[in-house]
Amino acid sequence: MKKVVRQFVLGLAGVMMAGIASAQHGVNAGGQEDDIRSLISRMTLEEKVSLLHGNSKFYVSGIKRLGVPEWALSDGPHGVRAEINRHDWGYAGWANDAATCFPPGTALAATWNPKLAYERGIVLGEEARFRKKDILLGPGINIIRSPLCGRNFEYMSEDPFLISRMAVAYIKALQSKDVAVSVKHWLANNQETHRDSVDVHMSERALREIYLPGFKASVTEGGAYTVMAAYNKFRGDWCSENEYLNREILRKEFGFKGVLMTDWAAAHSTIKAALTGLDLEMGTDKKDYNEWYFADPLISAVKEGKIPVSVVDEKVADVLWVMTKTKMFDEERREKGKMNTPEHQQAAYNDAAEAAVLLQNNRHILPLNFDKIKSLAVIGDNATRLQCNGGLSSEIKALYEVTPLDAIRKKFGATVKINFAQGYEKQSTFKEGSNTGQVSSDKIDWKLVDEAVKVARESEAVVIFGGLNHDFDSESFDKQNMDLPYGQDVLIREVAKANPNTVVVIIAGSPVKLSGIVHRVPAILWSWFGGMEAGNAVADLLSGKVNPSGKLPFTLPVSLDQSPAHALGNFPGRDLQVNYEEDILVGYRWFDTKKIVPQFPFGYGLSYTGFSLSHFSTDKTSYKNGETIHAKCTIKNTGSRYGAEVAQLYVSDPVCAVLRPEKELRAFEKVFLRPGEVKTIELNVKVADLAFYDEAKKAWNVEAGEFVLHFGNSSNNIAGSVKIQVK
Amino acid sequence: MKKVVRQFVLGLAGVMMAGIASAQHGVNAGGQEDDIRSLISRMTLEEKVSLLHGNSKFYVSGIKRLGVPEWALSDGPHGVRAEINRHDWGYAGWANDAATCFPPGTALAATWNPKLAYERGIVLGEEARFRKKDILLGPGINIIRSPLCGRNFEYMSEDPFLISRMAVAYIKALQSKDVAVSVKHWLANNQETHRDSVDVHMSERALREIYLPGFKASVTEGGAYTVMAAYNKFRGDWCSENEYLNREILRKEFGFKGVLMTDWAAAHSTIKAALTGLDLEMGTDKKDYNEWYFADPLISAVKEGKIPVSVVDEKVADVLWVMTKTKMFDEERREKGKMNTPEHQQAAYNDAAEAAVLLQNNRHILPLNFDKIKSLAVIGDNATRLQCNGGLSSEIKALYEVTPLDAIRKKFGATVKINFAQGYEKQSTFKEGSNTGQVSSDKIDWKLVDEAVKVARESEAVVIFGGLNHDFDSESFDKQNMDLPYGQDVLIREVAKANPNTVVVIIAGSPVKLSGIVHRVPAILWSWFGGMEAGNAVADLLSGKVNPSGKLPFTLPVSLDQSPAHALGNFPGRDLQVNYEEDILVGYRWFDTKKIVPQFPFGYGLSYTGFSLSHFSTDKTSYKNGETIHAKCTIKNTGSRYGAEVAQLYVSDPVCAVLRPEKELRAFEKVFLRPGEVKTIELNVKVADLAFYDEAKKAWNVEAGEFVLHFGNSSNNIAGSVKIQVK
Repeated sequence: MKKVVRQFVLGLAGVMMAGIASAQHGVNAGGQEDDIRSLISRMTLEEKVSLLHGNSKFYVSGIKRLGVPEWALSDGPHGVRAEINRHDWGYAGWANDAATCFPPGTALAATWNPKLAYERGIVLGEEARFRKKDILLGPGINIIRSPLCGRNFEYMSEDPFLISRMAVAYIKALQSKDVAVSVKHWLANNQETHRDSVDVHMSERALREIYLPGFKASVTEGGAYTVMAAYNKFRGDWCSENEYLNREILRKEFGFKGVLMTDWAAAHSTIKAALTGLDLEMGTDKKDYNEWYFADPLISAVKEGKIPVSVVDEKVADVLWVMTKTKMFDEERREKGKMNTPEHQQAAYNDAAEAAVLLQNNRHILPLNFDKIKSLAVIGDNATRLQCNGGLSSEIKALYEVTPLDAIRKKFGATVKINFAQGYEKQSTFKEGSNTGQVSSDKIDWKLVDEAVKVARESEAVVIFGGLNHDFDSESFDKQNMDLPYGQDVLIREVAKANPNTVVVIIAGSPVKLSGIVHRVPAILWSWFGGMEAGNAVADLLSGKVNPSGKLPFTLPVSLDQSPAHALGNFPGRDLQVNYEEDILVGYRWFDTKKIVPQFPFGYGLSYTGFSLSHFSTDKTSYKNGETIHAKCTIKNTGSRYGAEVAQLYVSDPVCAVLRPEKELRAFEKVFLRPGEVKTIELNVKVADLAFYDEAKKAWNVEAGEFVLHFGNSSNNIAGSVKIQVK
Repeated sequence: MKKVVRQFVLGLAGVMMAGIASAQHGVNAGGQEDDIRSLISRMTLEEKVSLLHGNSKFYVSGIKRLGVPEWALSDGPHGVRAEINRHDWGYAGWANDAATCFPPGTALAATWNPKLAYERGIVLGEEARFRKKDILLGPGINIIRSPLCGRNFEYMSEDPFLISRMAVAYIKALQSKDVAVSVKHWLANNQETHRDSVDVHMSERALREIYLPGFKASVTEGGAYTVMAAYNKFRGDWCSENEYLNREILRKEFGFKGVLMTDWAAAHSTIKAALTGLDLEMGTDKKDYNEWYFADPLISAVKEGKIPVSVVDEKVADVLWVMTKTKMFDEERREKGKMNTPEHQQAAYNDAAEAAVLLQNNRHILPLNFDKIKSLAVIGDNATRLQCNGGLSSEIKALYEVTPLDAIRKKFGATVKINFAQGYEKQSTFKEGSNTGQVSSDKIDWKLVDEAVKVARESEAVVIFGGLNHDFDSESFDKQNMDLPYGQDVLIREVAKANPNTVVVIIAGSPVKLSGIVHRVPAILWSWFGGMEAGNAVADLLSGKVNPSGKLPFTLPVSLDQSPAHALGNFPGRDLQVNYEEDILVGYRWFDTKKIVPQFPFGYGLSYTGFSLSHFSTDKTSYKNGETIHAKCTIKNTGSRYGAEVAQLYVSDPVCAVLRPEKELRAFEKVFLRPGEVKTIELNVKVADLAFYDEAKKAWNVEAGEFVLHFGNSSNNIAGSVKIQVK
């Protein structure tokens, strides 16, 4: 490939400028196999091993004499994290590292719009490159198994199909900017409690149908360059040294060619990890980097004959392959990056605007008519709290963050009197010495409640900004319950009594219990952690400038016990072992199959306009395996506002040798329509995707017979169904 | 009335035997007005007043010289309480006061069989008379407004119609044995938290439609001789001195002629209480009985002209009227009583057997076939715990109490190996100095869990006896939450994993959260506190000797927040005031109207056989006010076992000037059928009972137009509906 060879030469020019003179240095991105082998052959064992472990918190040594550059990694999935000190977790205090902060994972998934995932990938790639980063650690795509998992806000969904669509778009875009993703956390890091010691067990079918698809799509469709091994164990072995996951599935089945790295301090051995496919050790908690498992001990193991040098070469090849793919040997042609451009900020706004889910809107109280109302009470700590800087590895030094109160004052303050009251107070919820780190808080500050009631009385309408914050949605510990903290139920009740025109905006990245408020207030808008444009987006949603179009990417249970892991009592496990006994019945698969009515179902979300779905059809009535079902439906905007609806296609297999979920998402499309506008869309499902994983045959199996395609705008609102036959 | 005059003479004979010689003594039960007036005219003021307050914990002085006997009162609603010391709360240690103990109120209501309420009334009357009691303090008929109220187990239902049917039968039977009931607690004692200080506010409509009907039926249909004023305030005034409740409603509207007494220590004044209709002061916490409000202070108030003596005479007349009605002046003809006869014990068994509600029975795992199984694990503290002796004023010194484990061993132990494990431990849940008295407990004893798992593994089937005990269901404090205490969710989960043939029996008198176990076990039987025959009944239910036929007398929410008082945040009130903002939407009226799906709905309960309801009709299609709707339906036992179904008739008013509940219970009948048997029953509803209380008109109002009659076997399972017109 001529062009690629030229890139290599140009890349080499860069390398030369760095003082490295040999034309044999670096790797050609095209004829890379040979070049990589050749480069490796010139490395000493010590040089090879230096590429396989960190030399600081987020960097890996290069090899100067051979033109292999240092490797720069960075958190995180919804913004490029501020620069960390080389050798400790303090921030470096750089002046140019204020980034664009997007709404985290669940918000992205709630847009049900892969185009936004793509747009985000582009922005993150540009900003990572501006910051000279080579790998951006994300996306986080673990299944939301329990409402309590502390990292749910970083993850995307309870549904592997929705995750896959968003992840693939995100990865393709980000890597197009010459930055590698690191898809995390491989595998089953579905809880933070004991994450560094828990052993996860699940059936092969649950693994194949629920927990693997997002990773498979990320690697095989998205082409992810790196994957991050999780902290936990899987079936008895640490994920960072798991033969089955890493050699059998990731390498052999998925054909993964890139780098498998550890999560920070997730390495546990030298020989076992080396022989089972781990490439790169990061974050180990030893000050002398040479003492890490993949440093001097690896050199010794090779010298002692315990690990063939070919195994080390393989790992180095993986590293060089990623470096090549991200044009690290071709700096001139490499993406130069941009930081915080108006386009980037617009992208953050777009995500926040499309993510918001309108859960309830009785009396059509929303949107608020700011031309008419003279006064508005804005209540709640979350109206003014900055959220971008929380969540541990997700924390972002945002260039700015517009809070809801800022935005409402700026947009409407000239004509509407804005009466603010804090309503509740964020309390210190961190318990010293607790292994969860966090205690729930339900203390009610009646003084704040009374102040809030007073401003509510004095105002024509009220918006309460409640929900969680990153004392709850955070890496490293799980929530202790699903409640709204700080006595918000009481605050909301008292305010709603004082003023029935009360809207609640939930700012949270994971399920919270709404049963205490749904009957107290006419309207609830779930606006997530909204990134740095959070306030602008939510103000525009409240005023109707933007029409809500988000859909829940997870089920909102009435109570925690309804959700499968808790109903079956296997969260967070016992004696450091957790068995996923709910098996394939995760999320709506459980609720639908068990006929449990949640507070709000998966895929649910209202609009300020109305939509109808009709004319459901398929191109044929009978299919063979290998074919694709081309399904169609028509969507009409039946209301009077521009808006978007998400057409969702679920599949049922009514008769099957094994239990199948009541229905499973297999296609969706977000459709934007003017009032009265009608569109017919095509939703395609491969017949192969009707399969279940047959544990007896150790293979996917599409049983011949009837399948039913359900078209709806949420998992519990099916507008029509079409039956098809598979021969 | 000749006969009655003779009774008087005979009564007098008894009085004479007691050493009182004047033929003018006592009161003629027939020409009683004049006789009562005459007797009163011969009393000194001091003698009169002596009849209006206790002279000990449970007695009121008589007037020896006039042949007025001492009055003996006793707790309680589901058994005659053991004898209390005259002047303190210690038990007197009598040898003859071990009584028959029935399942408490919610269990009785769960039978949906007024015949059993009648049977119970007979037994209680006989045992009260055997113990020489004149008044038995009960039934407790307050509305179950919140799942948390500590006395819910003593009360009956969330539905005033069901309460009324049970209460009227109970009262008629008990009073037929010459013992007065004391219907309690008048009014709105729907919580124990701050019961002695809280001020209850509700709309006039909620008062009329929800909180009064049970009392109205008790007085006007049941003919209750006494009523007990509650501890709390109602609309600012103590219930014991509430002009509106006591004079306007109870006396004038209901025409109540009997005695209005206080709850123990619920009097708060002399003059106000005297002038607003209170007759009898009981339980005041002053050692010198002469210092009580209705003792020396009452004498003084009369002497000072602050209270007319006619007011005192009125009260004495009420007392003498009740004494007459209960044949206290006719001891020879009076019921002599019986104690703990086989018939009494059978009645207790009947209630327990008909009360049990089968909530779930997947795989038809129940009944257990004791002829086939070789081993059964019996797990749970409630398998062996004695329950009759708990609950404060409800505690009974039962002659015996058969525990579930006792009964199972005795009935099946010869052929089935019974493996017992305690499973969880009742912990001390009383917090010193707490005003609720009770703290929730969720400590898990893993040692007990592991033992339980072991016996579950070793057995063919498992029955776990869990639920609450009287540390939770008790007078004087409310539950703090709706959870199953002592980590039972975990116990049940672990046991069910070890043995999938696990049945859970819930022993509790108030709603508990089942969302944590419904998906863990195939079968759940709610067997209430079962009285002294609890074990025998539950063993026969488990074996199928008895077929469950109980129906829930309250809604079982998924989570506490679903239920109206909690959804609206007005339980237990604030600053000692509680506003019933849910208004008429109590219980299923709320869930149905708000379309909230509970865990199990009001009126729900399964059977080991099947039933179908069909052929729904009314005698006419159009009615006028004053008429009665004669509705019919046919019930068939479609299964293979003898059993009973409760046909329930709910009424809807689809178009009305005011919000009406989605539907309201207006008739029901429990029907016993052999396999294949068919019966047609008639359910009658007065057109007047279709009315709502019209606050504008201050009157009941049946709006002309369409009403819908719904026939079903639970509030959420309507088999058919018939529309009628009201002109």
